[in-house]
Amino acid sequence: MPATIATPAASLLARYKAVRHATANLCRPLSPEDMMVQSCPEASPVKWHLAHTSWFFETFVLREFVAAYQPFHPDFPWLFNSYYNSLGDMPEKKLRSSFSRPPLDAILAYRAHVDAAMDRLLQHPLEDEAARRIVLGLEHEQQHQELIATDIKHALFTNPLHPAYLEAPPEQKPTPTIAPPLDWITFNPGLTEIGLTLDPASIEAFAFDNETPRHKVYIAPFRLANRPITCAEYLAFMEQNGYNRPELWLSEGWITQRAEGWQAPLYWQRDTTTKSGWCIYTLHGFIPLEDLSETPVCHLSFFEADAYARWVGHRLPTEFEWEHATQSHPVQGNLLETGNLHPTAAPPNEGLQQIFGDVWEWTASGYTGYPGYHPLPGALGEYNGKFMSSQMVLRGGSCVTPATHIRATYRNFFTPATRWQFSGLRVAHDAS
Amino acid sequence: MPATIATPAASLLARYKAVRHATANLCRPLSPEDMMVQSCPEASPVKWHLAHTSWFFETFVLREFVAAYQPFHPDFPWLFNSYYNSLGDMPEKKLRSSFSRPPLDAILAYRAHVDAAMDRLLQHPLEDEAARRIVLGLEHEQQHQELIATDIKHALFTNPLHPAYLEAPPEQKPTPTIAPPLDWITFNPGLTEIGLTLDPASIEAFAFDNETPRHKVYIAPFRLANRPITCAEYLAFMEQNGYNRPELWLSEGWITQRAEGWQAPLYWQRDTTTKSGWCIYTLHGFIPLEDLSETPVCHLSFFEADAYARWVGHRLPTEFEWEHATQSHPVQGNLLETGNLHPTAAPPNEGLQQIFGDVWEWTASGYTGYPGYHPLPGALGEYNGKFMSSQMVLRGGSCVTPATHIRATYRNFFTPATRWQFSGLRVAHDAS
Amino acid sequence: MPATIATPAASLLARYKAVRHATANLCRPLSPEDMMVQSCPEASPVKWHLAHTSWFFETFVLREFVAAYQPFHPDFPWLFNSYYNSLGDMPEKKLRSSFSRPPLDAILAYRAHVDAAMDRLLQHPLEDEAARRIVLGLEHEQQHQELIATDIKHALFTNPLHPAYLEAPPEQKPTPTIAPPLDWITFNPGLTEIGLTLDPASIEAFAFDNETPRHKVYIAPFRLANRPITCAEYLAFMEQNGYNRPELWLSEGWITQRAEGWQAPLYWQRDTTTKSGWCIYTLHGFIPLEDLSETPVCHLSFFEADAYARWVGHRLPTEFEWEHATQSHPVQGNLLETGNLHPTAAPPNEGLQQIFGDVWEWTASGYTGYPGYHPLPGALGEYNGKFMSSQMVLRGGSCVTPATHIRATYRNFFTPATRWQFSGLRVAHDAS
Amino acid sequence: MPATIATPAASLLARYKAVRHATANLCRPLSPEDMMVQSCPEASPVKWHLAHTSWFFETFVLREFVAAYQPFHPDFPWLFNSYYNSLGDMPEKKLRSSFSRPPLDAILAYRAHVDAAMDRLLQHPLEDEAARRIVLGLEHEQQHQELIATDIKHALFTNPLHPAYLEAPPEQKPTPTIAPPLDWITFNPGLTEIGLTLDPASIEAFAFDNETPRHKVYIAPFRLANRPITCAEYLAFMEQNGYNRPELWLSEGWITQRAEGWQAPLYWQRDTTTKSGWCIYTLHGFIPLEDLSETPVCHLSFFEADAYARWVGHRLPTEFEWEHATQSHPVQGNLLETGNLHPTAAPPNEGLQQIFGDVWEWTASGYTGYPGYHPLPGALGEYNGKFMSSQMVLRGGSCVTPATHIRATYRNFFTPATRWQFSGLRVAHDAS
Repeated sequence: MPATIATPAASLLARYKAVRHATANLCRPLSPEDMMVQSCPEASPVKWHLAHTSWFFETFVLREFVAAYQPFHPDFPWLFNSYYNSLGDMPEKKLRSSFSRPPLDAILAYRAHVDAAMDRLLQHPLEDEAARRIVLGLEHEQQHQELIATDIKHALFTNPLHPAYLEAPPEQKPTPTIAPPLDWITFNPGLTEIGLTLDPASIEAFAFDNETPRHKVYIAPFRLANRPITCAEYLAFMEQNGYNRPELWLSEGWITQRAEGWQAPLYWQRDTTTKSGWCIYTLHGFIPLEDLSETPVCHLSFFEADAYARWVGHRLPTEFEWEHATQSHPVQGNLLETGNLHPTAAPPNEGLQQIFGDVWEWTASGYTGYPGYHPLPGALGEYNGKFMSSQMVLRGGSCVTPATHIRATYRNFFTPATRWQFSGLRVAHDAS
Repeated sequence: MPATIATPAASLLARYKAVRHATANLCRPLSPEDMMVQSCPEASPVKWHLAHTSWFFETFVLREFVAAYQPFHPDFPWLFNSYYNSLGDMPEKKLRSSFSRPPLDAILAYRAHVDAAMDRLLQHPLEDEAARRIVLGLEHEQQHQELIATDIKHALFTNPLHPAYLEAPPEQKPTPTIAPPLDWITFNPGLTEIGLTLDPASIEAFAFDNETPRHKVYIAPFRLANRPITCAEYLAFMEQNGYNRPELWLSEGWITQRAEGWQAPLYWQRDTTTKSGWCIYTLHGFIPLEDLSETPVCHLSFFEADAYARWVGHRLPTEFEWEHATQSHPVQGNLLETGNLHPTAAPPNEGLQQIFGDVWEWTASGYTGYPGYHPLPGALGEYNGKFMSSQMVLRGGSCVTPATHIRATYRNFFTPATRWQFSGLRVAHDAS
Repeated sequence: MPATIATPAASLLARYKAVRHATANLCRPLSPEDMMVQSCPEASPVKWHLAHTSWFFETFVLREFVAAYQPFHPDFPWLFNSYYNSLGDMPEKKLRSSFSRPPLDAILAYRAHVDAAMDRLLQHPLEDEAARRIVLGLEHEQQHQELIATDIKHALFTNPLHPAYLEAPPEQKPTPTIAPPLDWITFNPGLTEIGLTLDPASIEAFAFDNETPRHKVYIAPFRLANRPITCAEYLAFMEQNGYNRPELWLSEGWITQRAEGWQAPLYWQRDTTTKSGWCIYTLHGFIPLEDLSETPVCHLSFFEADAYARWVGHRLPTEFEWEHATQSHPVQGNLLETGNLHPTAAPPNEGLQQIFGDVWEWTASGYTGYPGYHPLPGALGEYNGKFMSSQMVLRGGSCVTPATHIRATYRNFFTPATRWQFSGLRVAHDAS
Repeated sequence: MPATIATPAASLLARYKAVRHATANLCRPLSPEDMMVQSCPEASPVKWHLAHTSWFFETFVLREFVAAYQPFHPDFPWLFNSYYNSLGDMPEKKLRSSFSRPPLDAILAYRAHVDAAMDRLLQHPLEDEAARRIVLGLEHEQQHQELIATDIKHALFTNPLHPAYLEAPPEQKPTPTIAPPLDWITFNPGLTEIGLTLDPASIEAFAFDNETPRHKVYIAPFRLANRPITCAEYLAFMEQNGYNRPELWLSEGWITQRAEGWQAPLYWQRDTTTKSGWCIYTLHGFIPLEDLSETPVCHLSFFEADAYARWVGHRLPTEFEWEHATQSHPVQGNLLETGNLHPTAAPPNEGLQQIFGDVWEWTASGYTGYPGYHPLPGALGEYNGKFMSSQMVLRGGSCVTPATHIRATYRNFFTPATRWQFSGLRVAHDAS
């Protein structure tokens, strides 16, 4: 069942404050200089995320629903537009690393200005469309919380000194618990329902347009692994020469990994001082692989996930199989709020584990619209729909996804060569 | 129902001879110099196609099933390998334009050598696996016949003189007949069966591995257009500024067309001497747009097909809708054997027209494996399976597809920016 | 005559303090965020310049001549190495924009640490080699002062808001004085001496290795313009379609400007609100072209300078002609210390004007070693010598060159497509 | 002394026929398919060379000096223009590989048509300017003879089968004679004269515009090696790790060779079946390095030549030193007419050897105009002048340069990364 939102504006205000506070909290360990770095084309500077998430409320809520709203700065409407062509031109993405002005202080003042206006707006009953957009803005900001975590991880790793985002307190050092053995859950064939249809007369539930409408899908019998693949399991693939055997790879994947020189997941480095010969960069700095061997492997491209699955004799699940298997699963797990900021070993329980959190799970499904899909009207229609080509769907959220942001129907999507997200895999198999 | 093959080797020999003859026939208007040109990364020189299709029979049939077979030349097994990594290294694709040696005469001798050995083999009863591979080799060669037509079209167009492949005899000048008005065929919702499962104990039927296995798919109610979109209809999109309105385009499509400077389909050129202001390059040379306005528009990328559909208020069909709608349709139409070498206007009939031939129809479906899909064993497993990422499915064949090569279950696939094939579109719509 | 240095360490200390202070002074208008920006491959973040110039003294002076010197940080020796391969590996240049850590405060502490150690060293008599390297380090730091000015100009211009580095006080608004008419100074043919030879037994004079040794060059009779070309003169070239006439351009220049879309110097923008229709970005923000029309045109590539000279019927001088003409000229002019930070109009005097300062003048000479040239021994040999290919020589310094850093023999060098420096031109002509 | 031309048209006709015949002769071993290959951006298909050299006479002689001349084909004037922007647009260079039409037969007919018209023209006395242009056209064609040899060498080597251009008859197998020891010739300092000035009233002598005018240059004392560097000597550099020591390389050279993966000259390949472990591809196919070790090393970039010279403790000569040293040297040597098509070992003589032929010798001089240089008027001014940036001068001709085409003042030029020419080096040294 989809997450519900409280209708009284007052409780929406509470949620607004909580989300905005969580964003600020994520930035606490960062200096203004850290927030300038843009270390790969996928990423943006943290400062930009702070501005853009405020821009979203200003553009889609305040300027449309508050007659007396005074914009903070005349240039910000175009300066912090990300990709909404309908709203006019915007700076090229790569220029964001040149935004030393406005300074961080001005961005924080912008956030405060928007927060004050939102506070005033939320003192009174709201039009439904305004409420819907506020909820959308909060989900949007939560997406950027995840991006802040993944972008700053890449930024600090790119720094030749590889500083940590947060030093782990000594007592929090990951204890190498043992993940349960890989096991299978079997699902019977039949028609299932995928996605959801929102009641236009209600604002109780939220979903992105790309999760709608609810529709029938026929599913053949299959088995799904009880947990994601671990670092130890992935290391076996590497040690069996998996990166150098073309027959294991999709053609595009082989070309990509040869060109990029991939021989391990992103953030793995050879380290002769560790027992395993490897260490892994995390938001807490480098950790020996042997201390993470039972945790889900992450920062894989789709191509690596797919090659691993082929090597081990299985396959990736489709997004329909995944959703069918997990739709009654409670939304809990190693999500952003645990503060782990890295996957942890699966608990020793029966049944499907680590469905939500830990790692996004690559599926075998290309990202396209569901039957009957219609984007939101106006500029917001650019939110999801225009990215429906050459991307693969990921499911389940990661250790840096906010807990209130994820659900079984949630569809994340990236191009198959993407590695900077906390992306791993869970294998599947045909049943008969 | 899938195409059937005759089991007696004798009738297989007849089919072998017919296919090989058709290849030679296609090359008749070409000089050895023409057969050297490789004008874009997608294309190969015609001479290479002649060699590679013979290599296929030598590698997968003669060297495996004919103990006494003497290979034609010790270097050809690696020289004319296209992309089968399991068989060892091969030359980079772009080097094919440097293959002035072996000369065309040697390639023709290679073909004759393979033909003679195949003739001897087909005098006697065959193992089933050999027969299956011969059929595969013939379907493979038919794919390359289509590629010869599309590659030489691109090669001759790239020549600044734009010579024609074949001058059209004056009497064959296309008469501008009128295509029937766009109309809709409605399909009810329900479970359908897609693809086919081959009986492993029979070699009567052929399909590529990517068409298997037959499996259930639930289809929501939809409407499919009676015919493909015409040049005149597409011109309206252009004249309404379709290429310059970002809201009509997928994000990746917009980026691509801006970078490439697309303002019309491939092979369209401004021409102030024609009534329409445009002319279109065909295998018969340039033809004024006004003489082709009722014919299906072709040489579109997926992005253009998708943008047109959005502009006109419809969408592309999924490959499942397409196959469901056409599975009882007879395989006939404007295919390679008509000699038109270009799409023609739809006939003025009721119901679905131009399902087979004229233009490949882009679908909204990403190219992935069907549930239960398994590639062929060994090197032949690289034939289709390893391309299952970042490509879109096309259906129905084109005016340069051999008639015996196409069927309702046939899945063609290209990356969404591809334009050098005869690719167009048919629109669809949700029903309710 | 070359600049002289005072031998007593005490006066070297005074010079050291003055140069280091000037660097800090340049950074005064900049925030830590500004100092993070790296907006083009030629540029570095200002913070990096602050660290690297300290690294130079630490590496080549303190660690070699002060036995008890304690390095500031164990990673800085490789982290802030620019391009000295002999000293070991270094980070790729493009990574410098990820150096949010060490923070600016740490870099300033590094500078203070080095300054304190240098202060102690300079309390006592020095070995000659140490003194020579300190002088080299000061000249090096002055080069980076110029780079700080040019890099931050590019960084702030790249910001879509185009902030100014320093707002010009209203009274400093450039008064459009009139440059004197273009006139010619004639030079007779004959042998001249170019460059200089340093007395190894003295540290009184300084020159870079690439200015040595002094050697004879035969010069044919020539005429040199009295002043650089102005913006107004360059605008005439633009208005006469100069950017679109291939016959005016070197082949490589034509290819470059077509690919880059150049139609004006760097930093010129169309502006319909100004009388001239153009405005020019300066370190004081945008200024209408009409207020700068009599000032030397700058931010030209060699290709533009060369095309202008061809268009106007003249040519660029060789570096030998330039040095021959200017060797007795006093070193004064619109240099960094004037605080103008932009070229100004030539004064209405007789003879050669604006030889030093205002704009670097592109010459017709490729940058190669003089007869008998030997690079400095050891890692310092990489300072100049290894760049002697595919670069052109510029002479005379610019409005952001420190006055004590320039001299008639000074050879600056950049690839011919470079535009981010304050580079302009002075024309020459054969005499007979 | 410059080559002289005979004034009577009759003897010009004889020279015309000889040059044109030599071009045809070079193509004798090639098929029409061979003449289609364009294997690198520097090269053109041989067929294009055949057409373009005829285009040159048609454009600059026949269409301007023969009133009744009927052009062969209306499209050829733009189709076979190489880079003369003044004459209008032309096809992009990379499209030349698509010129399957016009077929070779048509190109040969074009040559015959031009030859016939030239024959008629040369039956009668000529205007001086016509005679000058014919001589220029012949020199131009000789340049293309060299390009035919180097381009087809690259084309055949690019073919994975590496066929030979001409099988060497067994008796011509290179006898490994011993080159004389490296020795030095010393030259005194002083003013010398470089280049030449043509008498405008005479057509007796020929030189390209870039060799003019004759002008004074002061030369410091220097020593020049008696012969070029051999393969054996270069192998020592390779074996001493020369390709992996950055201190030996110019910065741009180091970046280039790392990016390209150079570890040997072009055309050298590891070969475990030879004694030396290397073989070298020549126009006669692969030859073991041990059979070529005493021959001048060739197919070096400027960067490799420069790095070798630095490693061995010497330097490259300037073009002025080279010309000064060789200006009284007779033009003879291992040039195209010997038929060797590859450098041979130096003869055991005193003094400078192998000045002309064998290998072009990279000099330390950037390619710029001489003092007083003026390009030819009109479109022919684009012949040489517009390439005067970012290129280095080479001197002396190679084993594929026609003997009547080379002289001491001749300036060849290429960018410093160029390797597909027969380019080697001779070292020099300062004297005192």
